[in-house]
Amino acid sequence: MIWCRFQHAGRTSYGIVEGDMVVPVEGSPFGEHRRTAEKLALSSVKLLVPVIPGTFYCAGVNYSDHVTKMAKKRGEEPKLPTRAEIGYRANNALLEHEGNIVKPKDSGELFQYEGELVAVFGKTGKHIPREKALDYVLGWTIGNDVSERTWQRGDRTFWRGKNADTFKPMGPWIVTGLHPRDMRTIIRLNGKEVESFNTGDMIFDAETFISETSRYCTIQAGDVMWLGTDGAPQNMKVGDTIEVEITGIGVLRNYIVAEA
Amino acid sequence: MIWCRFQHAGRTSYGIVEGDMVVPVEGSPFGEHRRTAEKLALSSVKLLVPVIPGTFYCAGVNYSDHVTKMAKKRGEEPKLPTRAEIGYRANNALLEHEGNIVKPKDSGELFQYEGELVAVFGKTGKHIPREKALDYVLGWTIGNDVSERTWQRGDRTFWRGKNADTFKPMGPWIVTGLHPRDMRTIIRLNGKEVESFNTGDMIFDAETFISETSRYCTIQAGDVMWLGTDGAPQNMKVGDTIEVEITGIGVLRNYIVAEA
Repeated sequence: MIWCRFQHAGRTSYGIVEGDMVVPVEGSPFGEHRRTAEKLALSSVKLLVPVIPGTFYCAGVNYSDHVTKMAKKRGEEPKLPTRAEIGYRANNALLEHEGNIVKPKDSGELFQYEGELVAVFGKTGKHIPREKALDYVLGWTIGNDVSERTWQRGDRTFWRGKNADTFKPMGPWIVTGLHPRDMRTIIRLNGKEVESFNTGDMIFDAETFISETSRYCTIQAGDVMWLGTDGAPQNMKVGDTIEVEITGIGVLRNYIVAEA
Repeated sequence: MIWCRFQHAGRTSYGIVEGDMVVPVEGSPFGEHRRTAEKLALSSVKLLVPVIPGTFYCAGVNYSDHVTKMAKKRGEEPKLPTRAEIGYRANNALLEHEGNIVKPKDSGELFQYEGELVAVFGKTGKHIPREKALDYVLGWTIGNDVSERTWQRGDRTFWRGKNADTFKPMGPWIVTGLHPRDMRTIIRLNGKEVESFNTGDMIFDAETFISETSRYCTIQAGDVMWLGTDGAPQNMKVGDTIEVEITGIGVLRNYIVAEA
């Protein structure tokens, strides 16, 4: 089942995608909801970020190749994480599928994508055992953890390096019934594949991150958890198209534009 | 004017506090709203966290005495921030005035308060000039940035050290028409004053943080920005009562309880 959030004729609504149609839904997948009798052409709606999370969790480093290659680029020894310690991103940065990633005027060349699998929570829970972790996930979507590396390294926090407006594309929708270990992530820059990796290669899998985080933090329906990227990203420049595909979910496509 | 958010007879609503009464309001201070003809005794309502922010900004270090004393405690040289670089906290950790701060079972002795002035935004804006920054603030509330120092220092992120459930008391309400440089913060542990400082002693004032943050991040109505604490906090233990008073706003009071 595919849940989307969309805008159509001035209305914002959740919907269920069926083939090339969308069935608008009253309510949301995170609470009571009811299918309407309507059907809209998928091509006629504007897809929105599928959920504005209450808490925006992000694993950060979670694939060993990424850690090793990024450390090498900086001339440092790689430091693999030894525990599943979750981080955060900020809602102001969210951007919908097909939206424009705005490259700030004073940002540098090291402006990079990070394609990530995203868990979208459907239930509220704390002290969630590992073996029940996936019961709390409504479905899966795709995130692009756009990063300005000079700011990321030089600033005291990840505020503008990771969280400037439009730096967090998420979408195109939420797909239920998938297993987070069986997917392949493929990243294309201007149509050319620049990276591909298996979600099964995570250092700490989704179940571990959910279970560990929920030891201290109540996970709520509508929260999201981004699960990290692999490889060493290339730079994106104004005019580029960046696509993150995850098999079984779809493609998240965005365009790099200059700040006005 | 004092805005509160409250629960009464199963209903959650915004309200305006007038003396010892609350006038329930339809809508919210962040959008359209209308006073009702009702009046409730303030003592009969349960005050809630005054807003669940879309983005939960937090300045972190922002008073020089705090930086100097905390570094000394750790046997390190103090490093004063040279730029207003904003950080983040997480909504799962929010707790209302008079609520219980739950000290996790495996947390250590260095379990500490941090009393902070909080800006609550009422308007959405980007590239906000310093001299217009306060126009975007609806009003002011109080935050207690509860911190488990061992986790804060040893973990890769601030997840459980700063963002475990109940670690972010905020309230009791939002007061409009105040100037953020003229307030005094007084912290009391079990009724005894343990710290007091002027909000005017911030390293970077509210206007600077708002203006700098908004260069890259759109600030939205309903977002909050916590503005840092001064001094070197003492430890809190189970059974303690912690109060943060800020003149002109009121008192944020919470109780330390053990995790069940």
